[in-house]
Amino acid sequence: MDMDLKITNGKIVTASDTFSGELGIERGKIVQIAEKIKDSAAEVVDAQGLYVFPGGVDVHTHLDMPFQGTSTCDDFKTGTIAAAFGGTTTIVDFAVQTKGTTLKGALDAWMKKAEGKAVIDYGFHIAIAYLDEAIMAEIPEVVAMGVSSFKCFLAYKGALMIDDGTLYRILQKAKEAGALVSIHAENGDVLDILIKDCVAQGKVEPKYHALSRPPAAEAEATGRGIALAQMAGAPIYIVHLSCKEALDKVKEARDAGYPVFAETCPQYLLLSYENYLEPDFKGAKYVCSPPLRDKANWEVLWKGLAGNDLQVVATDHAPFNFKGQKDMGRNNFAAIPNGSPGIEHRMSLLFQAGVNQGRLSLNRYVEVTSTSPAKLFGLFPQKGTIAVGSDADLMIFDPKAPFEISAKTQHQNIDYTPYEGFKGAGVCKTVFSNGKVIVRDGSFLGKPGNGRFLKRKPFRM
Amino acid sequence: MDMDLKITNGKIVTASDTFSGELGIERGKIVQIAEKIKDSAAEVVDAQGLYVFPGGVDVHTHLDMPFQGTSTCDDFKTGTIAAAFGGTTTIVDFAVQTKGTTLKGALDAWMKKAEGKAVIDYGFHIAIAYLDEAIMAEIPEVVAMGVSSFKCFLAYKGALMIDDGTLYRILQKAKEAGALVSIHAENGDVLDILIKDCVAQGKVEPKYHALSRPPAAEAEATGRGIALAQMAGAPIYIVHLSCKEALDKVKEARDAGYPVFAETCPQYLLLSYENYLEPDFKGAKYVCSPPLRDKANWEVLWKGLAGNDLQVVATDHAPFNFKGQKDMGRNNFAAIPNGSPGIEHRMSLLFQAGVNQGRLSLNRYVEVTSTSPAKLFGLFPQKGTIAVGSDADLMIFDPKAPFEISAKTQHQNIDYTPYEGFKGAGVCKTVFSNGKVIVRDGSFLGKPGNGRFLKRKPFRM
Amino acid sequence: MDMDLKITNGKIVTASDTFSGELGIERGKIVQIAEKIKDSAAEVVDAQGLYVFPGGVDVHTHLDMPFQGTSTCDDFKTGTIAAAFGGTTTIVDFAVQTKGTTLKGALDAWMKKAEGKAVIDYGFHIAIAYLDEAIMAEIPEVVAMGVSSFKCFLAYKGALMIDDGTLYRILQKAKEAGALVSIHAENGDVLDILIKDCVAQGKVEPKYHALSRPPAAEAEATGRGIALAQMAGAPIYIVHLSCKEALDKVKEARDAGYPVFAETCPQYLLLSYENYLEPDFKGAKYVCSPPLRDKANWEVLWKGLAGNDLQVVATDHAPFNFKGQKDMGRNNFAAIPNGSPGIEHRMSLLFQAGVNQGRLSLNRYVEVTSTSPAKLFGLFPQKGTIAVGSDADLMIFDPKAPFEISAKTQHQNIDYTPYEGFKGAGVCKTVFSNGKVIVRDGSFLGKPGNGRFLKRKPFRM
Amino acid sequence: MDMDLKITNGKIVTASDTFSGELGIERGKIVQIAEKIKDSAAEVVDAQGLYVFPGGVDVHTHLDMPFQGTSTCDDFKTGTIAAAFGGTTTIVDFAVQTKGTTLKGALDAWMKKAEGKAVIDYGFHIAIAYLDEAIMAEIPEVVAMGVSSFKCFLAYKGALMIDDGTLYRILQKAKEAGALVSIHAENGDVLDILIKDCVAQGKVEPKYHALSRPPAAEAEATGRGIALAQMAGAPIYIVHLSCKEALDKVKEARDAGYPVFAETCPQYLLLSYENYLEPDFKGAKYVCSPPLRDKANWEVLWKGLAGNDLQVVATDHAPFNFKGQKDMGRNNFAAIPNGSPGIEHRMSLLFQAGVNQGRLSLNRYVEVTSTSPAKLFGLFPQKGTIAVGSDADLMIFDPKAPFEISAKTQHQNIDYTPYEGFKGAGVCKTVFSNGKVIVRDGSFLGKPGNGRFLKRKPFRM
Repeated sequence: MDMDLKITNGKIVTASDTFSGELGIERGKIVQIAEKIKDSAAEVVDAQGLYVFPGGVDVHTHLDMPFQGTSTCDDFKTGTIAAAFGGTTTIVDFAVQTKGTTLKGALDAWMKKAEGKAVIDYGFHIAIAYLDEAIMAEIPEVVAMGVSSFKCFLAYKGALMIDDGTLYRILQKAKEAGALVSIHAENGDVLDILIKDCVAQGKVEPKYHALSRPPAAEAEATGRGIALAQMAGAPIYIVHLSCKEALDKVKEARDAGYPVFAETCPQYLLLSYENYLEPDFKGAKYVCSPPLRDKANWEVLWKGLAGNDLQVVATDHAPFNFKGQKDMGRNNFAAIPNGSPGIEHRMSLLFQAGVNQGRLSLNRYVEVTSTSPAKLFGLFPQKGTIAVGSDADLMIFDPKAPFEISAKTQHQNIDYTPYEGFKGAGVCKTVFSNGKVIVRDGSFLGKPGNGRFLKRKPFRM
Repeated sequence: MDMDLKITNGKIVTASDTFSGELGIERGKIVQIAEKIKDSAAEVVDAQGLYVFPGGVDVHTHLDMPFQGTSTCDDFKTGTIAAAFGGTTTIVDFAVQTKGTTLKGALDAWMKKAEGKAVIDYGFHIAIAYLDEAIMAEIPEVVAMGVSSFKCFLAYKGALMIDDGTLYRILQKAKEAGALVSIHAENGDVLDILIKDCVAQGKVEPKYHALSRPPAAEAEATGRGIALAQMAGAPIYIVHLSCKEALDKVKEARDAGYPVFAETCPQYLLLSYENYLEPDFKGAKYVCSPPLRDKANWEVLWKGLAGNDLQVVATDHAPFNFKGQKDMGRNNFAAIPNGSPGIEHRMSLLFQAGVNQGRLSLNRYVEVTSTSPAKLFGLFPQKGTIAVGSDADLMIFDPKAPFEISAKTQHQNIDYTPYEGFKGAGVCKTVFSNGKVIVRDGSFLGKPGNGRFLKRKPFRM
Repeated sequence: MDMDLKITNGKIVTASDTFSGELGIERGKIVQIAEKIKDSAAEVVDAQGLYVFPGGVDVHTHLDMPFQGTSTCDDFKTGTIAAAFGGTTTIVDFAVQTKGTTLKGALDAWMKKAEGKAVIDYGFHIAIAYLDEAIMAEIPEVVAMGVSSFKCFLAYKGALMIDDGTLYRILQKAKEAGALVSIHAENGDVLDILIKDCVAQGKVEPKYHALSRPPAAEAEATGRGIALAQMAGAPIYIVHLSCKEALDKVKEARDAGYPVFAETCPQYLLLSYENYLEPDFKGAKYVCSPPLRDKANWEVLWKGLAGNDLQVVATDHAPFNFKGQKDMGRNNFAAIPNGSPGIEHRMSLLFQAGVNQGRLSLNRYVEVTSTSPAKLFGLFPQKGTIAVGSDADLMIFDPKAPFEISAKTQHQNIDYTPYEGFKGAGVCKTVFSNGKVIVRDGSFLGKPGNGRFLKRKPFRM
Repeated sequence: MDMDLKITNGKIVTASDTFSGELGIERGKIVQIAEKIKDSAAEVVDAQGLYVFPGGVDVHTHLDMPFQGTSTCDDFKTGTIAAAFGGTTTIVDFAVQTKGTTLKGALDAWMKKAEGKAVIDYGFHIAIAYLDEAIMAEIPEVVAMGVSSFKCFLAYKGALMIDDGTLYRILQKAKEAGALVSIHAENGDVLDILIKDCVAQGKVEPKYHALSRPPAAEAEATGRGIALAQMAGAPIYIVHLSCKEALDKVKEARDAGYPVFAETCPQYLLLSYENYLEPDFKGAKYVCSPPLRDKANWEVLWKGLAGNDLQVVATDHAPFNFKGQKDMGRNNFAAIPNGSPGIEHRMSLLFQAGVNQGRLSLNRYVEVTSTSPAKLFGLFPQKGTIAVGSDADLMIFDPKAPFEISAKTQHQNIDYTPYEGFKGAGVCKTVFSNGKVIVRDGSFLGKPGNGRFLKRKPFRM
């Protein structure tokens, strides 16, 4: 046999191009793209009538993460299997450093969590919650180890939150080391007061989670992070941007030519404040930070995606079961673990609401879910595209196949989904990781431990 | 032989990807992209150490155009040969309708100008200077004939200028017909007064061309055109945007999610108002509209290109000889024919000032000079990319080869170049049109008449 | 007797100050302001518990004006009597020049309309609808005659509308002559098409008046007028600004330091698009240009007034009877005469909705209804304030007295009021013109012909 | 005698009015304003050819203040005498609370500093550097005692700086209590790093004071303070705004209708970064925070004043002698006491650079130096205007009299002035405090201890 694998008759889509053609794969990599591949192949997959997309790249997941006294309920096995079912073939998860831990210590701990479990390739950002001279010295070291991005929290006062001086130092050091700093942008000082005030006034239902985290607090922190990045001459990446007010800060900076980037998530495009009003404490399912916003933000965010003021859609997958976890906050929204699942459904949800509803072109769909995150986080062109030499992480996607999301049928290891009952068209038929089929027609064919740690390259604008 | 042509060992660059690989071409089209092409080919071109780019697409040229009592001095033969030498393999020129002519009449006239002369493929926009019911009825007809874009002038009062009502009607009709309207955005009413006031005051040197066309007049007309497009629910494209003030209008509209697009030209990125002060009437060489601006605009425009507020770099190639044409205005700047050459030098100038100087990535360079204009003007994916199925319009580009621009060595049929003495690195070695070599190492190998008229597809956002 | 008149025990309010005190008046002028006036006076008016305000200055009225084939139904007698009842003691009306008339001719015609009729002082702007060299030469002449402001229409195509060149010339000339140019800012070219399209589609009800004059058309013309003024180095004044989109243009210019001024009218602060939906053609009562907008604009305009982005509230009083005039457009909104009455009710409406509802301070109320228009239009300090040396144009105002507006009880010579049924507190008890009582407790005590023509001073920023 | 004092023949100027008239004063208050006062008076001051202005109100002074290990070198005697010579008749100084002190303790300490010394009336803001429940409880108490404004520092990390949570709590409490919060807006966290980095790199000359405090750090903190105020529903006042970047934040908020106010100081209107380059360590004289900026900011700030985006000009008078104080930082700019004198020269400098140079009208001059600060800080109409019932704090001002500023002739108790050699026209001839002459023709006639503590009213928008 000349080749390991041939994908024939498909419509191949990249961030820039759409064309009919065939793909030839050897040694886990794409070696040929052609009108017609003459060579024989050990396996031939017919993609007649289907799209061939690069596999999804989800740069914001939290698997097996301790948080608020509990832990996210997907580990690197269940979480990556769910990802694979949804067409996501690469994740970048967060190793979380806390006071008393080193960056390498945090990375090491998360490497162990993933080892032997992940079914797709993965990388790590490191979240920095404490900084001293020794930690600063580690920054270039971990970049050299393939961790070319860091995350800082401007929220979660008393826990992960850092002050402006710490953020500024990290921006300085990261820039020197070739790393991109991302921020969770909410003013933790103000939120802390607003939350306390709510609780003191007996306002403890889930909706107060949203009302104590107003858009203005996100916008302020977004603007502040951008200002600090400008002063440091560093790029910055805003995670999980949720609202117009924050997006306006990003637009202002980008209009002025600053290297400011931002991601949003399906929950901010498809769910809203109204979900918090669901009865029987069901609003707790949607407690994530930033909170869900008014629906008026939806079109603003979609336009931001279409127009490139937002570059990435990631999930912030941070699953906590409704029973046993979310209900820790039944009497106090502040005790509800913050987070919501989505790693499995991103690609179909975005296809339905983005492509089918005319908000994103096919190419832009690929760009925001795969190419652009791969580029920003040092994974391109290994991941994020269909090009000669790239890893054969691919999904064959049926744009007509209907789907309906339900907790009953999902692979995420959690007892609910915020998208219960969402319907649409656009389903992953076959998923390849490094040239191997890992999902076919609803069956998982991969293997825990086959996912490799990705040494990511330094950030380049 | 299996194939007509193979390009081996190159670094292939598209708007999205950069990779080492080989291209296989048959019947004028790209049929294979591979790590290594095993098939044999009638011709093999080795691109070792070189870039393989999609050929340039220049959507703003004026060949063989009567204007201000004279005519541009490149026709479709000399102009397209010059384009070919510079790596541009597609142009979209302007057929100009005037009162008393129909759109089809104008198109027909320009078809005749190109026929038998063009050495590369070409399309036409139609500039509309007069509108009535009959002309309106022609709009869908010429779109069906492959002319999916129109141009309107808000400048040149008493000549090409139309009023807001006419522009609005054209926007309405063009939108229905699937065409994109572009505008020359300067307030012709005000310019007319400013020019008359200058001349009346004896201010007749070339610099008064610029001083009588202030940035505010361009910004106003840009904003007005955008406002009319918004009211008509139509997309709009601003040609030859020259300054920060106008770009701010575009940014504002794009931030709000409107389908507003804009091009700039090498002259606005590389030349400035100071050129008008050159002695001995040499400032006349730079008389084009909008005029050259202060240098402070350069970085603003580069950042606009990098950040996608500007999508296209075209040339507005409108050559008039210094002797015999420009000097018609020796005693009155208002009589200097407006226009400046550039069709030959765009790709090298942009590479040097954009890529080599770190303002544009390689991919973005390809996007603004080729992919994005092809997409906006209905030529994609036939033109503007390197993908299976696309026309084999390619240039093999040596990024290290030095160049120095001079009227003595140029192929443009004009007695000067505004870029005289500009030096840099980045030269077209070999240029292919539809799979055939038309330029190799400084020799022209193409043939007048080989260029085909391109029926462009309707505009799609 | 030492004095002609004393006003005792009042709370005196100016644009800057509020204090308890007494006023002494001689020869029609204020000669003393004191804690207690010891001098005796021929007449003593006790203002215990009441405000003493400077009389209102309404700089936008159309009395006895031919328009759209009919004429406004208040002349200088009925109109100024109505004004007086409402506490307005100065108006600036519009003399309208048309093609074939000179500016002096227009002024003369309007002087005749006012002569022997006006009961309060008045001045004139001149609306210029046609310009040539001779008209231009008249500009400084009429300024010297006391007409230091002109109005240009960017709307009403084919009638009053002028082109950008004409506006630019007027801005140039007016600046030299010390005059302020005001504009009716709507894009007449686009409106003309939108109106024709509506009518052609059988959309002839009053609401289509609004739907064919979108906010975007007002914003565009506002921005254009401002841009032309900037290029001419001239100040500009936007009449009857109605919406957020237009106000944003004003804010942008003022933030940049340009001398841009704007007025709004009670109808844009208190009425809305919904009024057009009133049954039985009653929507026609509200047909004025620009049209009434969505209610969301109300707070934006109020904040603009409070924050000084809007400086003036005038009425654009242009009354047409519902029967016999408005109903000319029963089958076609385009035939409804544009205009709406308000000269009588401005001061009470603004007091109720502005002061009583906490949107304007007492001082700001005086400023926007009296001081600021007087300053902008060359009447200050003769009019617009309570200061030593100023004309004793005053109103004694009971802030607690209730009012209810009704056509039955109004003094405007028209068969309806758009404010029918509006209630509030704040009524003019006594009104003085040049030191003489003209209204007392609902009785008119003035005399037609007592109003004097005001030679206004040149504009000074 | 009927009256205590008459001021005759003057041109009286308020924030709104300018007129010829006479003033009658009894019991320290203005009791009559008239064309001609018939009553006799114990003292008659002829103001022929002169302006009569309300006395200046300087709401930002630091007399007898310990800071950076030393103390400002004007106490309440020398400082208020200098103020009086310059026509300033009211100051609001800062009582500074630090950790371990109560608000009342701080107020008490400052009351003692002023007692028996001040020659003009004075009030106090309290600067809050530490907050707990007990301090919060004091806020309404001190407001009731006449301290209706507080100041918070976002700069001076490790000293006066508070965190966002503390600012937010203060904004909440102050709003409830009717007080206005002002902020020193620079990002202290970032400055702390920039200063340390400079010193570590041996960059210790005075200019590094400016280079380590960039405009972006001021703009960020300005925007943050405004955002927090918006979330708290509270007004906010930005002290000593120095640059375009910060002013843009104020404009954005004011355009949106938020109650945001800002002051600038003469040093930011008249001095610039270039002063730091003066040889022999003389640059240290200009070390104040925020630092002096590029000259390009001057016109931006003047336009901000003219257009009411800036409402106040105060001095931030914080004098430190060049010898013995400023030179503490000869080897390290960070040890130079931050502050610069100006209490004496504000009124003349502003008149020259503002009124004489056409940037401010006479009325606006009065407004920004007297009326507007009095209104914002609860002193109006007792202070800040010339109206019946107001305190007779007045200055008679000769607009033609020349001045030249020099340390040799000043009354400020400091060995230099940053305005050395500044010349212009506009000098205070006679100054009245509560109806008594305290300065006449260069002689001081007042008495330490005559100045009264002013109980200021709560803030009202």
